[in-house]
Amino acid sequence: MPHAPRLARRAQDMPASPIRRLAPFAAEARAAGKTVYGLNIGQPDIPTPDAVLERLRAFDGRNVAYGPSEGLPEFLDALHAYYADVGLPLERGEIFVTTGGSEAILFVLGMIADPGDEVLVFEPFYTNYNGFSTLLGVRTVPVTTRAEDGYHLPSRAEIEARITERTRGILVCSPNNPTGTVYRDDELELLTAICRERGLYLVADEVYREFTYDGRKHRSILSFPDLEDLAIVVDSLSKRLSVCGIRVGSIVSRNRELMRAVLHCGQARLCPPTLGQWAATAMRDVPASYMEEVIREYELRRDVVYDALTSIEGVTLRKPEGAFYVCARLPVDDADRFAEFLLRDFDQDGRTVMIAPANGFYATPGLGTDEARLAYVLNRDDLGRAMEAFAAALHAYDGVRR
Amino acid sequence: MPHAPRLARRAQDMPASPIRRLAPFAAEARAAGKTVYGLNIGQPDIPTPDAVLERLRAFDGRNVAYGPSEGLPEFLDALHAYYADVGLPLERGEIFVTTGGSEAILFVLGMIADPGDEVLVFEPFYTNYNGFSTLLGVRTVPVTTRAEDGYHLPSRAEIEARITERTRGILVCSPNNPTGTVYRDDELELLTAICRERGLYLVADEVYREFTYDGRKHRSILSFPDLEDLAIVVDSLSKRLSVCGIRVGSIVSRNRELMRAVLHCGQARLCPPTLGQWAATAMRDVPASYMEEVIREYELRRDVVYDALTSIEGVTLRKPEGAFYVCARLPVDDADRFAEFLLRDFDQDGRTVMIAPANGFYATPGLGTDEARLAYVLNRDDLGRAMEAFAAALHAYDGVRR
Repeated sequence: MPHAPRLARRAQDMPASPIRRLAPFAAEARAAGKTVYGLNIGQPDIPTPDAVLERLRAFDGRNVAYGPSEGLPEFLDALHAYYADVGLPLERGEIFVTTGGSEAILFVLGMIADPGDEVLVFEPFYTNYNGFSTLLGVRTVPVTTRAEDGYHLPSRAEIEARITERTRGILVCSPNNPTGTVYRDDELELLTAICRERGLYLVADEVYREFTYDGRKHRSILSFPDLEDLAIVVDSLSKRLSVCGIRVGSIVSRNRELMRAVLHCGQARLCPPTLGQWAATAMRDVPASYMEEVIREYELRRDVVYDALTSIEGVTLRKPEGAFYVCARLPVDDADRFAEFLLRDFDQDGRTVMIAPANGFYATPGLGTDEARLAYVLNRDDLGRAMEAFAAALHAYDGVRR
Repeated sequence: MPHAPRLARRAQDMPASPIRRLAPFAAEARAAGKTVYGLNIGQPDIPTPDAVLERLRAFDGRNVAYGPSEGLPEFLDALHAYYADVGLPLERGEIFVTTGGSEAILFVLGMIADPGDEVLVFEPFYTNYNGFSTLLGVRTVPVTTRAEDGYHLPSRAEIEARITERTRGILVCSPNNPTGTVYRDDELELLTAICRERGLYLVADEVYREFTYDGRKHRSILSFPDLEDLAIVVDSLSKRLSVCGIRVGSIVSRNRELMRAVLHCGQARLCPPTLGQWAATAMRDVPASYMEEVIREYELRRDVVYDALTSIEGVTLRKPEGAFYVCARLPVDDADRFAEFLLRDFDQDGRTVMIAPANGFYATPGLGTDEARLAYVLNRDDLGRAMEAFAAALHAYDGVRR
């Protein structure tokens, strides 16, 4: 047997999913008859709009053919109508359809940064930014936000301290995964000012655009003046239509040179999924009431989780403002150990909870050890039971910090 | 307006689709009332099997959810059954479902090679290898094959001359896109011997596995002994089931370390398309006669194109052995100019042809200038008319080499 050559260095560096380690424990718990409430990932239980499922089932092609690399024309029409509806009228060529928000991140990071170049991200951040930057050889440079500030942005000085000659852009996610924070207009203005002055791209992950609570509105970076060539939005239909599995997203920018480079990336992979685009073209026919009801439901779920967490002594959090996540500091030595405890050593009347330890959302070693993310993606009854079990588990956990 | 920072160097290097330049001319020709036979891309007109379309229309989820990063369990079952059927029994964990063969190439190149590392490819080659290697910073090093050899492999010495300290693997596509060549067992044995001796990965793009003619059989690199840790197959259902738009493919390897790294890549993008996997799970129910009829049809189409080309003076080609492409040297100064002439300045009774100039399939500058690829993806009647027009155009073209 010949000796296999080593894999690429970046293969060793590719981060494993931070919650994957826990999956076997969840499977064991379920096999043992426990009810495991999955608050660990952002897979909503919300039904896809009827119009979308009906269009899917009405697929009338003789075969499932390639579409254009930039997206099916009728789906692009639907996207243009959507963005105009949310106050973002766009020209042809300013929207590029991607295979989920994931591919949008890959292409954008790849087209603005070379191996060794840097992009600032606010930690805790969506873990997969790390996966794509590792694949591309791009360095994600963390700027830390804090639980006690509700994970809002730190000062201008703290942000600018991380900018170097290799910095090519700032990547911001609002409403935020994993923290649920919605950045205020003044925070976004700060970022746009820094990017304008330093000549940096501002990349905004706005996939949770509509998911804002307590009357808040999210402002797209596309709406800021004098930012045409710097603003790049990565977007996805996954959460908006509860169609995570269709793998359809988009890159939106008025920077034509960038969009041309993105098209070349897209030509290499031929086209985004035809079936997902076919079905999602029916987004035109989804009544506004669908999204209103979804948001109202998430706001109520948020309240269930927030009220439960604030009534537990030693838990630090601010009220989440958007998306469907909450990050909190827990009175435990190690949230990773506590998450394992929940699955392996605990149940309340046969019930327990799966959470995402937050250390995987930080790039700075040692941060997030006592924090966790909970996704409120279950119905309120289940969420209520889950939070009861969660509170009881915190009391029972013998690694509780004294 | 602030000055935009430059894009990444790799953004400038991303190759445009070599046939994209011609698309506007095809649109103009059609707008002018010409019938344009599209022999430029590998989009077959073959219907998707009924079982697959029926399962698609029977989608019964309340929503379209994420699946596992490695693929839906029931779809993986169908793939295991398929590979066992073609003589490749595999263990769990040796198949990873990707978003088309495209993503399989991206992940494999990324996991075996770091920026600056090299992978040998036989030119002319599938252009998109270039796109992905550019995105990853990997160098594709061409080893030239020749029209007069039927694009079969050159000598061992010619291959080994391109191996350097940075070489990490050899990428081979058989049956070949764009040449239609099926490498013989002795050619594949040569490659396996080189890879074993030099400690290189052997990556095989086998998406056209079944598309072989005149009684030929394609041998998978997975069937060679003592290659377990070196052999990596990239695969796709696109052509096999005429489902190019579902974007479902796979990586197959017995190298567990590689498969673990690939899983980490896959976790970053969450999951491959759920709808495509759902529909393709019905591949279990597609009768063997479907593929037999498809192959018979392509063989007849191949004959139409081959007979037409060999009857034109000055055209150099060997009989294509597989896939559904033929590459040929044409009696023209510049196939790119000729392709443009076909669309802009020529018609025969209102008919003309769109072809893919082959220079885009070569990495060595200057090669392929007088070669073109034709995809025989139309029915035989249309193909016959297309080839008549093609022959007439070669006579009419005033850039013909004397």
